[in-house]
Amino acid sequence: MKPTGPIPQGYDALDGVLAVGGVKLTEVAEQTGETPLFVYSRALLTRKFNDLRAAMPAKLAIHYAMKANPFGPLLEHMNGLVDGFDIASGGELELALAAGVDPARISFAGPGKRDRELEAAIAVGVTLNCESEGEAERALAIAQRLGKPLKIAIRVNPGFDLKGSGMKMGGGAKQFGIDEERVPALVRRLIAAGADWRGFHIYAGSQALKAEALIETQSRTIALAARLADEAGASPPHVNLGGGYGIPYFPGDVAVDVDAVGAALRAELASVPDALADTRFAIELGRYLVGESGVYLTRIVDRKESHGEVFLITDGGLHHQLAASGNFGTVIRRNYPVAIASRFAAPADEVQSVVGCLCTPLDRLSDSAMLPRAEVGDLVAIFCAGAYGASASPARFLGQGPAREILL
Amino acid sequence: MKPTGPIPQGYDALDGVLAVGGVKLTEVAEQTGETPLFVYSRALLTRKFNDLRAAMPAKLAIHYAMKANPFGPLLEHMNGLVDGFDIASGGELELALAAGVDPARISFAGPGKRDRELEAAIAVGVTLNCESEGEAERALAIAQRLGKPLKIAIRVNPGFDLKGSGMKMGGGAKQFGIDEERVPALVRRLIAAGADWRGFHIYAGSQALKAEALIETQSRTIALAARLADEAGASPPHVNLGGGYGIPYFPGDVAVDVDAVGAALRAELASVPDALADTRFAIELGRYLVGESGVYLTRIVDRKESHGEVFLITDGGLHHQLAASGNFGTVIRRNYPVAIASRFAAPADEVQSVVGCLCTPLDRLSDSAMLPRAEVGDLVAIFCAGAYGASASPARFLGQGPAREILL
Repeated sequence: MKPTGPIPQGYDALDGVLAVGGVKLTEVAEQTGETPLFVYSRALLTRKFNDLRAAMPAKLAIHYAMKANPFGPLLEHMNGLVDGFDIASGGELELALAAGVDPARISFAGPGKRDRELEAAIAVGVTLNCESEGEAERALAIAQRLGKPLKIAIRVNPGFDLKGSGMKMGGGAKQFGIDEERVPALVRRLIAAGADWRGFHIYAGSQALKAEALIETQSRTIALAARLADEAGASPPHVNLGGGYGIPYFPGDVAVDVDAVGAALRAELASVPDALADTRFAIELGRYLVGESGVYLTRIVDRKESHGEVFLITDGGLHHQLAASGNFGTVIRRNYPVAIASRFAAPADEVQSVVGCLCTPLDRLSDSAMLPRAEVGDLVAIFCAGAYGASASPARFLGQGPAREILL
Repeated sequence: MKPTGPIPQGYDALDGVLAVGGVKLTEVAEQTGETPLFVYSRALLTRKFNDLRAAMPAKLAIHYAMKANPFGPLLEHMNGLVDGFDIASGGELELALAAGVDPARISFAGPGKRDRELEAAIAVGVTLNCESEGEAERALAIAQRLGKPLKIAIRVNPGFDLKGSGMKMGGGAKQFGIDEERVPALVRRLIAAGADWRGFHIYAGSQALKAEALIETQSRTIALAARLADEAGASPPHVNLGGGYGIPYFPGDVAVDVDAVGAALRAELASVPDALADTRFAIELGRYLVGESGVYLTRIVDRKESHGEVFLITDGGLHHQLAASGNFGTVIRRNYPVAIASRFAAPADEVQSVVGCLCTPLDRLSDSAMLPRAEVGDLVAIFCAGAYGASASPARFLGQGPAREILL
């Protein structure tokens, strides 16, 4: 038997089945008429955001990094909550605009922006988070050609990383941003060229759960921004402190203490160095805001035994939930939180492995977990499916296609 | 500096740039007008097949497992070469039929076949490789309801695996097939129910490079089929011996000695046990047939240095080439074969890392390889892109989309 991750808050049993916000997910699947299915909850999204908002300094802007989940209705919902959107491609720009996001609230990071993506962003007044000197020159030329102002911040490759983060985005050679020591010259260059310099974007890592690590990184990020401002001789209007707030996926994971992180940040912002006295600060979160508010539902097509192991074979799989299968940049496979949605209140009485329908041994959604004994037709729920699920999985693999997504 | 895998045969320098079959890939990219781009070569596909055909016993059927690459024009080309197609979903059935494949030459394996997929397959006369007793009963009922004959083979979960294989598909508890000891009863059940029992499908593993391991597995597979036939009291009309022939991806990998494998198989088939005297044998290959005949071309958008490391930032990435990025079920990241296509004849004189355009540190296509010094606008080629590339990658990730594919 192998343990599973903790089921996020907000999921309850109603008449014995899995429900969210008083709605039974078995009925949602029936009404939708198809599985697999991603279900996202407005109520959980709002609650998560409001809890974070309450924990954070009032003047701190909270941005949504839409790479975590670009589903249109979810973007529209988030647009009513957050202060800004961070995009990572021209494709995400189109999705954000289609969802009604004001381009003045959008910033665009990404190391490989093509000219046509820069053009599209500059044309509508998006702020570029510039990743290199070469990109800065391309952006200046495009803005001049279009006769548009160039709103541009500098993404800094910090000399430190976020301790305990799942993905390090600083602290060494990186394809992201500009090494610290070259930043002041670029600030001066952009200002001299007449660009609307918007400040700094500093992102040190992602998916960290320890408050101390996040607090230390935020403190170092503010100090770095102040030092770079001093060296450049210019005060940044904005500083994006990055994100990195993780969510619990695996056995033993504990949620971030955002009250502690918020309190520390409040203290930091109350006494910023002079160079940042008029600076507006933001954090940028994707997974943290949306990850726990989604669940992936897949139906059991077959139940079989092999050499004493019970397999629940579903109509879903890694083509929708690559990360849950443990195959997306993971070294050691561990189980996401999982449940039998149609028997959510039943006692866990059998060790079962949940696999997908793909003809590859990689397609295992949950390994040897103790669950209520399930049968063909039962619904399996994989939690933490709100971020890096549908859009981060190879939907066309083995002739499959994308899963249906709905926002409740 | 880190080594790269061996560039497959058939790629040459022409006027200093990468060419295949006398066609310069830089010109293909210009004419296509967009990158990234998958280019597959008819000439290389044909040569690879013909070499294999010559090495194998004449009466051995060679099937194409289209999960490796389901691109329509490539399917049409393979249809003119191979003896059968193996599919893994109803979606693949549609793609195969659209490419003109005769359904009588198609077999359908996969542990999670839905009723509607079984219906579609039975309706057109596809052979099912049955994965469980439950699936067998569903198929019998559907065939009866449709008034169609049921062509059905039994997929066996062998008690051994393919040594050295990248993915083990036998030798223990598996979601694939039926444990050996339960197979004879199911053969009898299918025959008694009036099904057209087609024999056995026995697949022990994939991506093995050692001839000895493949030879041993084929020998054990034939012996297993004979034993099961004896126990069932019925001779299998067909036995699919599986595949598992790998291709070299990484430094030090050496191609399969197919002449040795073919010679051993010829000897085996010349003296099969009595129960298999009238059996027709097949092997089922995907990656081996198509993997080396494709190349992924992506253009350099930016060139930057960070802490002394040179990054070539491209317009492609893991959203098209997940496996090459080392993030698809890989424990230790190693470099695929890579080249600067637009400087293919130039001396390798600089250590450079090729990264994609995605805003994630996972998006690294080649790590610290010694390559000709490249600039913005140059084309990078990632080889071994003919299998498990486009369809096995999260094309929509970060607002990107699928890459163009062409067959030359």
